[in-house]
Amino acid sequence: MLTVEQAQEAVLASVSVLPSERMSLLEALGCVLAEPVVAGIPLPPFDNSAMDGFAVVAEDTRGATAAAPRGLTVVGDIPAGTVPGRRVGAGMAARIMTGAPVPEGADAVVMVEQSRPGAGGTVEILAPAKPGDNIRRMGDDVAARQTALPPGQVLGPSELGLAAALGCTHVVATRRPRVAIVTTGSELANPGEELKPGAIYDSNQVSIAGCVLRSGCEVARRLHAGDDEPAIEEAIRGCADADLIVTAGGVSVGDYDQVKAVLARLGEVKFWRVLMKPGKPVAFGSVLGRPVFGLPGNPVSALVTFELLVAPALRKMSGRQNCLPPTARATLLAGVRHEPGRREYLQAFTRYAGDGCVVEPSGKQGSALLTSAVGANSLLVIPEECEGLGAGEQVTVVLTAPETALDRGGATCGTRPR
Amino acid sequence: MLTVEQAQEAVLASVSVLPSERMSLLEALGCVLAEPVVAGIPLPPFDNSAMDGFAVVAEDTRGATAAAPRGLTVVGDIPAGTVPGRRVGAGMAARIMTGAPVPEGADAVVMVEQSRPGAGGTVEILAPAKPGDNIRRMGDDVAARQTALPPGQVLGPSELGLAAALGCTHVVATRRPRVAIVTTGSELANPGEELKPGAIYDSNQVSIAGCVLRSGCEVARRLHAGDDEPAIEEAIRGCADADLIVTAGGVSVGDYDQVKAVLARLGEVKFWRVLMKPGKPVAFGSVLGRPVFGLPGNPVSALVTFELLVAPALRKMSGRQNCLPPTARATLLAGVRHEPGRREYLQAFTRYAGDGCVVEPSGKQGSALLTSAVGANSLLVIPEECEGLGAGEQVTVVLTAPETALDRGGATCGTRPR
Repeated sequence: MLTVEQAQEAVLASVSVLPSERMSLLEALGCVLAEPVVAGIPLPPFDNSAMDGFAVVAEDTRGATAAAPRGLTVVGDIPAGTVPGRRVGAGMAARIMTGAPVPEGADAVVMVEQSRPGAGGTVEILAPAKPGDNIRRMGDDVAARQTALPPGQVLGPSELGLAAALGCTHVVATRRPRVAIVTTGSELANPGEELKPGAIYDSNQVSIAGCVLRSGCEVARRLHAGDDEPAIEEAIRGCADADLIVTAGGVSVGDYDQVKAVLARLGEVKFWRVLMKPGKPVAFGSVLGRPVFGLPGNPVSALVTFELLVAPALRKMSGRQNCLPPTARATLLAGVRHEPGRREYLQAFTRYAGDGCVVEPSGKQGSALLTSAVGANSLLVIPEECEGLGAGEQVTVVLTAPETALDRGGATCGTRPR
Repeated sequence: MLTVEQAQEAVLASVSVLPSERMSLLEALGCVLAEPVVAGIPLPPFDNSAMDGFAVVAEDTRGATAAAPRGLTVVGDIPAGTVPGRRVGAGMAARIMTGAPVPEGADAVVMVEQSRPGAGGTVEILAPAKPGDNIRRMGDDVAARQTALPPGQVLGPSELGLAAALGCTHVVATRRPRVAIVTTGSELANPGEELKPGAIYDSNQVSIAGCVLRSGCEVARRLHAGDDEPAIEEAIRGCADADLIVTAGGVSVGDYDQVKAVLARLGEVKFWRVLMKPGKPVAFGSVLGRPVFGLPGNPVSALVTFELLVAPALRKMSGRQNCLPPTARATLLAGVRHEPGRREYLQAFTRYAGDGCVVEPSGKQGSALLTSAVGANSLLVIPEECEGLGAGEQVTVVLTAPETALDRGGATCGTRPR
């Protein structure tokens, strides 16, 4: 049986980065750049004022003070977006706004706060300026023909803003993975339907779709199939428009666990068990030329195997450089017991306290107990051979919702209000 | 002038949680629950098997070993989703699948791995079972009529899965804030258009929209207005369908900074300067009964003021409990200088290294230098009166992309590939 690391390695070796496509800047939010953004213009495109004030010849302001101001003749007014009308020569000043082009002849801008109106169309400068003061030079941010954003760059708000500043409306980025979800099991009813005796509501379709969306990927389709092989096969064949297929249920050892058989017949099963708890009966392979994961049907097992195995595959397909889930070290707040054997992952809540993280399991644990995962933002890792961990020990946590794990103080943006 | 904390306090005191609405489970991903999810059924809905195996009377298996197995007559087969056909009495066993209802009479399930086929329709049990073994009791996860998810709960994949498991198709959650973005300045050209002399491309519309979307909110509209008050007023009046309005540019002290004047005339300006760098000229107030932020036009200033002031407002409006941006302590990798006065926020890259975080500024800083923000995932805080920070000092960072700050090792999911 593979360890989690061996399984992750097998998954990452097997999946490939998806093709790139041209998309609008906001469509590309969170995507990974596939072709560089090369500056077609310098940024800023021209020397411009960093302040509202007066464009001057610096030499004219030498020794200026409030007590001994230098009077200059105001020869123009340069709002942002206009072109300066005339040269600023010795003894002259042009009123200039932030972002407006610096007029020919001027070599400094005096902030409006260091000036006051003078008599008869003049301005009094109250402090000396050095050449270059308050001027943003053409190309200071990005030189023309420079690579502003390299391939591999994840596109957040600032990166998209830089592309827009260079005049781009689109970028070429790796396509978002489209994921198909197939839940199996004739015991499953759709939420909202009447629950017949012996049936339960299908929660995996929603929770796996939530994981897919939270990973920045798209849900291509959600299907349900019973326990018979033909139905499962038909459902999986219906997923040809997805980049990756996730099934839930039907990968254990029982007679009614048909998913593994269908995957083996339609494609290749690379592994079907991993030395972990929960999540031991998890399959990975390929069908229809696409990676496929057979997750266990227990809802907590499905969540854990998604985070540890499916999410890394989606990160690699998205073009990310580092694909493993983020981890941190944390101080354990309450002891936990463990039966040596498989590595165990407990649903847990990690938060930032002072100079480091602390972690505690989030309620009664069990692969079928969804309440243990409510409010959890991490998985507490219990090593294979350990017989338990004591309060105060340093442990490793896998962060499934990192935005809450480094939060200010004890409260956490409402993720765990109870 | 307000400090950042005073400004945040004024913002949070002024904005209100938005109304709630009924939404489908996946629409609610990332939203905050407004009405409790109360269990209409127990979870699980009936006693069921945790394993594939045989439902037995535990007493029948006492002392069973591989050498001395107990033979039981197989009286039935219970796939998941069916109702057991007959009672399991002494000397009997029913083949049972994971999730199937435990038949009347049986009080334990023996894993299939601890059995082997016997002669003539019997099964041999190879290990003793205790009453309750491998049985998941009705209501063990959630009792009927129990509050499964309380108001205030942030809805992630597991919380939505729990709601689905209880049969819910919809929840009542706080509406996602809809944000209108108005950029001002007659120097701005739309990306893709020809750049006339003196003009620059509008980057704020895209980067602010990116920040809004990354906050889990919606962009109601994106508008551009020139520098004249009537145009700005018309644009702001066109934002009545938004829950919050963000403008960029036009809040400084110059003659062409008209946004502040329009806001004061249409509504109320609560503050218009904050003791921070960049971002001093930032306005907050209300127009049309909606909160409005006037962000500075410099692109980096707009990003910083969004994270520190607008994002907290959006979190409160979304129903989150803790609204301030997540922060962490980190070890500074390279010294930085600072002119005492305003608190400064440098674009920085924080990563997890060993047992704690380290941080370094991300390139040449400047309120107009978007390249400083490329690949940054945090803001390095330099206190007001400090004259600089040395390498090795413990500093505070505001995390703008926390998912990369706690990443495994030095590499970071590709956020900073260079």
